Amino acid sequence: MKFHTRKWVKPEDLNPNGTLFGGRLLSWIDEEAALYTIIQLENNRVVTKRISQVDFKSSAKEGDIIEIGIEVVKFGMASLTLACEVRNIMTQEIILTISNILMANLDSEGKPCPHGKTKIEYVQDRLAKKNLT
Amino acid sequence: MKFHTRKWVKPEDLNPNGTLFGGRLLSWIDEEAALYTIIQLENNRVVTKRISQVDFKSSAKEGDIIEIGIEVVKFGMASLTLACEVRNIMTQEIILTISNILMANLDSEGKPCPHGKTKIEYVQDRLAKKNLT
Amino acid sequence: MKFHTRKWVKPEDLNPNGTLFGGRLLSWIDEEAALYTIIQLENNRVVTKRISQVDFKSSAKEGDIIEIGIEVVKFGMASLTLACEVRNIMTQEIILTISNILMANLDSEGKPCPHGKTKIEYVQDRLAKKNLT
Amino acid sequence: MKFHTRKWVKPEDLNPNGTLFGGRLLSWIDEEAALYTIIQLENNRVVTKRISQVDFKSSAKEGDIIEIGIEVVKFGMASLTLACEVRNIMTQEIILTISNILMANLDSEGKPCPHGKTKIEYVQDRLAKKNLT
Amino acid sequence: MKFHTRKWVKPEDLNPNGTLFGGRLLSWIDEEAALYTIIQLENNRVVTKRISQVDFKSSAKEGDIIEIGIEVVKFGMASLTLACEVRNIMTQEIILTISNILMANLDSEGKPCPHGKTKIEYVQDRLAKKNLT
Amino acid sequence: MKFHTRKWVKPEDLNPNGTLFGGRLLSWIDEEAALYTIIQLENNRVVTKRISQVDFKSSAKEGDIIEIGIEVVKFGMASLTLACEVRNIMTQEIILTISNILMANLDSEGKPCPHGKTKIEYVQDRLAKKNLT
Repeated sequence: MKFHTRKWVKPEDLNPNGTLFGGRLLSWIDEEAALYTIIQLENNRVVTKRISQVDFKSSAKEGDIIEIGIEVVKFGMASLTLACEVRNIMTQEIILTISNILMANLDSEGKPCPHGKTKIEYVQDRLAKKNLT
Repeated sequence: MKFHTRKWVKPEDLNPNGTLFGGRLLSWIDEEAALYTIIQLENNRVVTKRISQVDFKSSAKEGDIIEIGIEVVKFGMASLTLACEVRNIMTQEIILTISNILMANLDSEGKPCPHGKTKIEYVQDRLAKKNLT
Repeated sequence: MKFHTRKWVKPEDLNPNGTLFGGRLLSWIDEEAALYTIIQLENNRVVTKRISQVDFKSSAKEGDIIEIGIEVVKFGMASLTLACEVRNIMTQEIILTISNILMANLDSEGKPCPHGKTKIEYVQDRLAKKNLT
Repeated sequence: MKFHTRKWVKPEDLNPNGTLFGGRLLSWIDEEAALYTIIQLENNRVVTKRISQVDFKSSAKEGDIIEIGIEVVKFGMASLTLACEVRNIMTQEIILTISNILMANLDSEGKPCPHGKTKIEYVQDRLAKKNLT
Repeated sequence: MKFHTRKWVKPEDLNPNGTLFGGRLLSWIDEEAALYTIIQLENNRVVTKRISQVDFKSSAKEGDIIEIGIEVVKFGMASLTLACEVRNIMTQEIILTISNILMANLDSEGKPCPHGKTKIEYVQDRLAKKNLT
Repeated sequence: MKFHTRKWVKPEDLNPNGTLFGGRLLSWIDEEAALYTIIQLENNRVVTKRISQVDFKSSAKEGDIIEIGIEVVKFGMASLTLACEVRNIMTQEIILTISNILMANLDSEGKPCPHGKTKIEYVQDRLAKKNLT
């Protein structure tokens, strides 16, 4: 699990009970899953297809700093399945886990299409390879 | 399934591919589930505890009008389980389904507590009853 | 008056006095009026033309759940006039009333044009009719 | 009519037809009316009580710069009535007019109370007077 | 220094310490600098190129009303340099100063291009001149 | 320079020219600087005090994925100075650089106070140390 994006829980992110609004958190995760997939599949046209089992383990409050972790579960033919974990950066307490986020790879007409990827790649390696050629 | 809240898909709700951003949709649903639960349990302190299987069936585009449906699956002791369906109001095409949203009922210290409810109630009936007494 | 859309008053919706920001409420109403008109006139190009007499009857506070009601006042040739009422869903207390919202029906060049509608229609009926043909 | 606040119409401010969303504009105006009243009445607890006749004269599009004008119509005992005009800053074309925005002056318990003001004051004059004493 | 745009500090503008979030303030200033430049250069394609020395002199809290001042420092060949000052409107206390905001004037392909302007112009004068011809 | 937070440039982040709105970017950076400082100084009460020389090197467009890098320049007595770099994650092109962001460490009354830190610490190390004791 690699943790990249961090968020500072601000008043605009709270529900009326004064804790982090779950919908806001889901929105942050969906963006992270989408951008992670775009980086891996080198294709901008990806969509969230299915999310299985979202567990809200603990809550976050105003001023907390959280980080969003993403891990590849499986490279499908025309899809990528991710797992996600969100935790409090200072206490490392887990806030939310999602076992499976199925992202679909689409062609220019919005239809599923094979992406040809089978393992995690790093942007630095890709650019280094390009420079060699 | 009762459909109440409606949304007009505006530019601020889109992902870079020009379709409704999934995270925005999840955020709308989480708010609808929370407020539905508050109305039923007559308690402001409710939180989303678990969401099982979110299926994105079709997408929505700028200018579409969608409606969010909620249905009670089960009244637990200290919880309420909901199902959700989102559809395009003009075509009735289903955009998203969620089979189970588990909402927890909390006391003033944030601990789960029994809510004493066992079936759906309507605000009008409650107010009528109050006026009788 | 039919009440559909519901809102949960969150911190991001408050003015600095801790009550629902009037501008936010007006923004919610304008969206509801627009989407109601689009559904009735079966035309996406509608604009708010005139709003007469907005009365703020009572305020809403953080955590309140409100619902927005819309009613047709008059089907004009190239317009639709609506009335609006917003109330607290739990207490049924009225928060705001608007007697007349005049929505204009536009053609593809942004000019007013007749819509041919004279009474309220339901999406289900329209779809049933289509299936018959 | 004094024009102060200016807005640049950005993608987040548009309706699905690509013009300035009316609800966003109303929200901007309500903020301007509130802050103008707070400055004049030297009281933070003011609320919008009634708005009469809002006329949408023309639309604004992405990239337009607009300015919001406010004028005092009447100093009431416990209220202030304002007029408002919004125009395109480059063409001076009028976008919206509101003849009467009735702002109520409240005490710390949220009840209307006299504000003792009868004419427009300028912050500079107030501060100069304070320095004299 | 001319002060135009005013903002009412609302809950959505606060950081978790309850004071105005610096990032929000920078965002307001960047919009003001952009629209001021568009008005002066009569060109919509302008971008912020460099900002030098931003000083946060004092903070603002919920409910404060602030105003943003802009002043021309220098008309460059293909640029405009501005200074900015933000202050609390009631106390005139300075909240932030920026000595230099360099705005670039772009052509339709996004390349810097001369704007031909050498001094401040007023929209009223421009329109009056047009009417004379 | 460590790059953590990533953003997907969505329609709501654009200026009317269709590129990433500079104010939005500054807002993202200010949040990242604040949360980085809170983690390092183990104190929630930090504020941005001064930003020196912001250079916008290139622009970003809808759909781009960017990452925000932060580096410590200097541990002051009651402050922390950071450098920042934002780049396009796919092309590694630099979008923005800031040489100095001076963050102040405050006590509970909002006054600058020593933080006692002299070098970068990692949350994992801190927690490991706690567990040893």
